[in-house]
Amino acid sequence: MTGSGRLGLVRDRDDHGQARCVIALDAMGGDHGPGAVVPAALNYLKRHPQVVLILVGDEARIRSHLSGKGLPERLQVRHTTQEVGMDEPPSKALRNKKDSSMRVAIDLVKGGEADACVSAGNTGALMATARFVLKTLPHIDRPAICTAVPSLRGHTHVLDLGANVDCTAEHLFQFAVMGSELVAVVDGIERPKVALLNIGQEEIKGNEQVKQAHELLSRSQLNYVGYVEGDGIYLEDIDVIVTDGFVGNVALKSSEGVAKYIARMLKAHFNRNWLTRLSGLVALPVLKGFRRATDPRRYNGASLLGLRGIVVKSHGGADALAFEHAIAIAEQEVEASIPQRIGDQVGRHLAQAHYRESA
Amino acid sequence: MTGSGRLGLVRDRDDHGQARCVIALDAMGGDHGPGAVVPAALNYLKRHPQVVLILVGDEARIRSHLSGKGLPERLQVRHTTQEVGMDEPPSKALRNKKDSSMRVAIDLVKGGEADACVSAGNTGALMATARFVLKTLPHIDRPAICTAVPSLRGHTHVLDLGANVDCTAEHLFQFAVMGSELVAVVDGIERPKVALLNIGQEEIKGNEQVKQAHELLSRSQLNYVGYVEGDGIYLEDIDVIVTDGFVGNVALKSSEGVAKYIARMLKAHFNRNWLTRLSGLVALPVLKGFRRATDPRRYNGASLLGLRGIVVKSHGGADALAFEHAIAIAEQEVEASIPQRIGDQVGRHLAQAHYRESA
Repeated sequence: MTGSGRLGLVRDRDDHGQARCVIALDAMGGDHGPGAVVPAALNYLKRHPQVVLILVGDEARIRSHLSGKGLPERLQVRHTTQEVGMDEPPSKALRNKKDSSMRVAIDLVKGGEADACVSAGNTGALMATARFVLKTLPHIDRPAICTAVPSLRGHTHVLDLGANVDCTAEHLFQFAVMGSELVAVVDGIERPKVALLNIGQEEIKGNEQVKQAHELLSRSQLNYVGYVEGDGIYLEDIDVIVTDGFVGNVALKSSEGVAKYIARMLKAHFNRNWLTRLSGLVALPVLKGFRRATDPRRYNGASLLGLRGIVVKSHGGADALAFEHAIAIAEQEVEASIPQRIGDQVGRHLAQAHYRESA
Repeated sequence: MTGSGRLGLVRDRDDHGQARCVIALDAMGGDHGPGAVVPAALNYLKRHPQVVLILVGDEARIRSHLSGKGLPERLQVRHTTQEVGMDEPPSKALRNKKDSSMRVAIDLVKGGEADACVSAGNTGALMATARFVLKTLPHIDRPAICTAVPSLRGHTHVLDLGANVDCTAEHLFQFAVMGSELVAVVDGIERPKVALLNIGQEEIKGNEQVKQAHELLSRSQLNYVGYVEGDGIYLEDIDVIVTDGFVGNVALKSSEGVAKYIARMLKAHFNRNWLTRLSGLVALPVLKGFRRATDPRRYNGASLLGLRGIVVKSHGGADALAFEHAIAIAEQEVEASIPQRIGDQVGRHLAQAHYRESA
């Protein structure tokens, strides 16, 4: 029995025996719903011949975005009658929305009809539903949300981003293993550099959980490089930065805020008068190139790690281009069998860290 | 007996009976020591005729930065033999560095020889020493660090920035009162808008401390506007944002990191080739204006609030211009008698919040 078999995650094969990747998309989630998800799906299929996409949601609304054309090959629709609201409490969504696009997309993963699902819906409801339906992997107490953020070296993965507001040292350790496994595969790095987010590089600072996680990680066989401060997310050469969900969420939201503040200030300065507008026109190609290079849409797609199945969260405000990027992350995780890898590694790393503790 | 009398903070008067502001400067703190502090002091005195500055530190080193000239009027030197290292553990600094520039600057405030002190030294040691020497105000369990950050509306004050890694709801409430009092005076706003930093605007999110602080603040007579997410620091119309020191520190450091990342990316894009460099030259006045408007040095100076005395922390990397800004904050707090105001208000607000709780 293979690792994937145990986890109920055996991949489909097409008529020629080739592995095929089926991804369910919550078509109703996010600010734009099918208006972003349907064009993203159509475009994604063109460039990914091994992928089958299932649009889950209100069939009439989905079809209205197909602009009169029939369903292309490798695109399916699964009709659902409910939607989870962006501000709906997770427990309510879980109890009352069993035929929501979000729930059914996750059910498809659970039932083996899809290898992964992507949703731009409400994060809390998505996590609660995914956890309830798919369950967590062995040795994982809590799933975590992980995403890549742009940095001077290219990008850095950060987790948790909001699934867990209070974390023990053991939770942080599990996040470190999950992040390390994800990055090993998606970035092709054998031993990713892992750091703990803290408020000072001296060992005296930080709270108890962080200090204890530091001890656990120092004893582990992960490539743990120590503490990093907030600015290190963007400036230092680290692959995985681990923190609790409250801190991670605030760090990323604050960063978004600063980036928007800077963009608006820059625009205002170029719009001051005709002279500055003229210099803005001259600088336009550079500013556009800069904007492309730092486009947050290229980083859209956060992984819900630690589950017995692949769930990717797209930003609620994602447009079609950004949503496509989230689909790409889901496909990458399917190719790499991320849940199996995490399932295999977490227990091993935990045992090692605790063995050395008692040694 | 006045509030200031009770707190031992009666202001000096000059020969003409005018209130005079005496500020002690830790000349040895920060990355540049007297190289930044001495020129900052000289420049500050020129534009502030009511201020007396005391340079605390190694007299020979201080005098070497006076470039052969004698001491100008209103500038004094207090010789000390020790320095607190930037990475020195606070407890060690407190025990072994009784003749350090940092300690003596704070002692001057305690003894009434100075109305305030400014240090660019190690934050942990500064907070520990200030707390030990000056003590906290009545009703204040823990002092907090507060600073203004630039935002679309001008600026926003955030606290705590690292003094307290684990905070109860009551601590967060005290921070809210302290921040509100500070902003009322320095920004001249009668009822500053106060928000709690959280990871979602829905009431379901957040950790226990934040939810309980929300209850306390909702019952208080502060102008409490609810939760705000990380991006709100820079984008929303809020005067005071309250959070624990771990989260606040990470939020601000992350923001610094993003700003540096964006600046470097922008520079790299303008430096790509001769054509982009040329367009950069054309855009230079705009870019310079933008940089001036968003210059972090204009926001240098964090207040240690909740103490029986005024202590301002300058950024460790501050140059003379930035250090001058920190001196200006200290002077503003002296003018406004910040510790007295906080001492008067915290008890009143706490009693009100708890009275309504039991009502």
